[in-house]
Amino acid sequence: MRVERDMGKAAAVRPAHRVARWDREADVVIVGLGAAGACAAVEAAEAGAEVLVLERASGGGGTSALSTGQIYLGGGTPIQQACGFEDSPEEMFKYLMASCGPGPDEAKIRLYCDGSVAHFHWLVALGVPFKPTFYGDGSYTPTDDCLSFSGSELAYPYRDLARPAPRGHTVQHPSIEAGAVLMQRLLAAVERTTAAVQADALVQTLVVDDGRVVGLVARVDGREQVIRARGVILTAGGFINNRAMVDRYAPLLRKCRFRAACDGDDGRGIRMGMGAGGAAIRMDVGCIVLPFTVPKVLMKGILVNRRGMRFINEDVYQTVVGEAALLREGGEVFLITDNETFARPFAPAEIAAVEDTVADLERALGMPSGSLQHTVAVHNEHAARGEDPLFHKAAEYLAPLVHPPFAALDYTTRNSLYTVFTLGGLHTLPTGEVLTPDGEVVPGLWAAGRTTSGLAAQGYSSGLSLADATFFGRLAGRTAASRDAA
Amino acid sequence: MRVERDMGKAAAVRPAHRVARWDREADVVIVGLGAAGACAAVEAAEAGAEVLVLERASGGGGTSALSTGQIYLGGGTPIQQACGFEDSPEEMFKYLMASCGPGPDEAKIRLYCDGSVAHFHWLVALGVPFKPTFYGDGSYTPTDDCLSFSGSELAYPYRDLARPAPRGHTVQHPSIEAGAVLMQRLLAAVERTTAAVQADALVQTLVVDDGRVVGLVARVDGREQVIRARGVILTAGGFINNRAMVDRYAPLLRKCRFRAACDGDDGRGIRMGMGAGGAAIRMDVGCIVLPFTVPKVLMKGILVNRRGMRFINEDVYQTVVGEAALLREGGEVFLITDNETFARPFAPAEIAAVEDTVADLERALGMPSGSLQHTVAVHNEHAARGEDPLFHKAAEYLAPLVHPPFAALDYTTRNSLYTVFTLGGLHTLPTGEVLTPDGEVVPGLWAAGRTTSGLAAQGYSSGLSLADATFFGRLAGRTAASRDAA
Repeated sequence: MRVERDMGKAAAVRPAHRVARWDREADVVIVGLGAAGACAAVEAAEAGAEVLVLERASGGGGTSALSTGQIYLGGGTPIQQACGFEDSPEEMFKYLMASCGPGPDEAKIRLYCDGSVAHFHWLVALGVPFKPTFYGDGSYTPTDDCLSFSGSELAYPYRDLARPAPRGHTVQHPSIEAGAVLMQRLLAAVERTTAAVQADALVQTLVVDDGRVVGLVARVDGREQVIRARGVILTAGGFINNRAMVDRYAPLLRKCRFRAACDGDDGRGIRMGMGAGGAAIRMDVGCIVLPFTVPKVLMKGILVNRRGMRFINEDVYQTVVGEAALLREGGEVFLITDNETFARPFAPAEIAAVEDTVADLERALGMPSGSLQHTVAVHNEHAARGEDPLFHKAAEYLAPLVHPPFAALDYTTRNSLYTVFTLGGLHTLPTGEVLTPDGEVVPGLWAAGRTTSGLAAQGYSSGLSLADATFFGRLAGRTAASRDAA
Repeated sequence: MRVERDMGKAAAVRPAHRVARWDREADVVIVGLGAAGACAAVEAAEAGAEVLVLERASGGGGTSALSTGQIYLGGGTPIQQACGFEDSPEEMFKYLMASCGPGPDEAKIRLYCDGSVAHFHWLVALGVPFKPTFYGDGSYTPTDDCLSFSGSELAYPYRDLARPAPRGHTVQHPSIEAGAVLMQRLLAAVERTTAAVQADALVQTLVVDDGRVVGLVARVDGREQVIRARGVILTAGGFINNRAMVDRYAPLLRKCRFRAACDGDDGRGIRMGMGAGGAAIRMDVGCIVLPFTVPKVLMKGILVNRRGMRFINEDVYQTVVGEAALLREGGEVFLITDNETFARPFAPAEIAAVEDTVADLERALGMPSGSLQHTVAVHNEHAARGEDPLFHKAAEYLAPLVHPPFAALDYTTRNSLYTVFTLGGLHTLPTGEVLTPDGEVVPGLWAAGRTTSGLAAQGYSSGLSLADATFFGRLAGRTAASRDAA
């Protein structure tokens, strides 16, 4: 039986003339206290605005607090320099423009690359700790190290399009739960400002006066409060936990078994913005993580589809692999390894078959006769020469698969841990101003973080969501506060 | 230099309190006079409503008039019976549910399959001519024949999921421009009703009173008219001719060189609906036609990507091939033929290379050494036995490619004729009622045709857009008229 939670009627705006009285008022009201909301609150308060933050949970944190605490930063940060990596805003721009598409948001990417180093200093000044050490690569660091390659910078074709540099900056913490540390520091920063935080406050809908957002309706302690605002900032996360919305906009994402999101990611912020006239774009796009590359020796295996054919260079980032595996191959893929390249993967994946010959493995997997054998033979021939003319995997991950037994790890959506969150959302200017389907600004309304379509319109690198949240959250807070003053 | 046409501010609704006077009034006002608008007008007028149709061009027709006049109909129509094909609503349902996804709209498909025969009779009664003859297959008939396989019914996996029947019903006309005949008859039918048609009337935006659509603003003869309506039906086509919208929602579709759409398909209807609170869904999806299968002998060739690998069964329908070629292979595909299977294709496609051996062809195309040779060898070995274990192409299209010279037809997006129109649009109930992002009905607003996401949420078969337009246009007209009466 399908049980749906009540997702509310967030898009049904309340016209201002129906508001009998305002219970409360603030210059800037922020919906949601994850990383985006916290950064917006700090900036808006520092700009002199009276700020009220409403959080539906009993405390701030949101999905950001559940994350690995990795922020995509670059252009020559002190950490990059300390670890001996050269980077520039231009190289970072080239990489993001090449990888965050099709259809990347050039204005956001440009602004972010140019402002990334300054943003790093802002975070540090706020008390967010980064240790000047290099970890390696991955979407998280199980140690307290900071820097890692968190995208496809070293893989074809990106390595040829932009000088690779590690840009994943993980907040210092001895385990992978560094997102909690990030949020602890950001929430402490909010507390140092004049911003008021109201927890257990579920925002119901926006109040609109002749096309302008002038406030919102929230349920606080079981009672409805109508709150007047000169500007509202929606930082309420994505929509992966709203089954009906996923079905409507991005049905393939339903195949993923794990959702990287807190309960609040039910699209409420996006729907509120749409109700007030905002357009939601790229709603089909998700970040699809297939974490098959830990330990790294597994990258020496080859990923094949149901027909025993390779479909990607296995050293490209795990989100790019996940996207290809799900969207192009229907989530029907296997990793083929031999006895030298095999390792127990970090993420749960069943072993589909182990056989003494590739021919037997092919049979066990039900692949067309000769298909996998040919794929492995071609791969082996080229790998022995350190080449991969088909997919251009980097030489260090090339190894002939010749040592029996041979194993197939099951990376089908049924049996493996595809992790997903949504990347589509409100269409915004870099300032956070929400745009209508005509490309006009909705007066009085801002948004940031996963409530918006951000730096990665598609083609994700780890750390880009916290980049969206923190950088564009700040910008939204600043702009909303100054528009108010104007 | 990029020059954009002014696409208007269609989403900026006008609040009713800003309307000083109403220039005109009707029960049901229909925006756009293509097939959907015409059918809505006929039904609404027959139900007793006073109907006004506004068409931005100087006469009705829209994209429907430019089409091949093929309607996807089945379940046992008189034409199917006369031509000796068995069909049932259930088999039609099975096919559409399997092919119109991921995420097909089951309610619409169910209703359409159950009502398809009756709908055929309605069209005939209106004067739309169908000749009870079978043509073969394709998205059009260059003769005046009617019936054809216009989807992937005969191809794997669909042939195993539903009993195949031809369901493309092309309006009788000796050339491929049968859409003009369809529209001529539909427009004549509109004229026989009491519905008023106002041409050269560009609708600007909707008038909304407290969440209810109560009219619209149109520019008629250079003057603004504000028209009151008890119900508005948006049948204004898709958005492929709005460059900014395509960039925002479906950037990959920009690669297609040809757009199957009249000038009016600039998303105005969709934006108006969004402005009034409607949700637009599946906006990333297009119907991507790669017409490589005429003449049919070309289907005996094999489609390969840049790595010389096959990626699909070549007998699947050309829209499914187009979708796979563009979305999965980035529009970098070639058709490999030999001297026996070669023919000049009907649609313009350059010959990329002609060589005496497959090895030379592989080199000429810059493919990895051995890749195309292996693909052809495997294909030939199986084809000689009438098998295609990799992609399950039907036996009748299997032929070993062994007769030199060998040719590669260039079906890259750069050099071939990818034809596209959009399939995403307003989220509607089968009745045409437009839904908000919360799944609530927007009072007073209906939509049909390519302004909506319809039968084919994705995975197109030819004739489904005229099916959406005519069948759901009728339903919207009937419902809008009766709601008015209620």
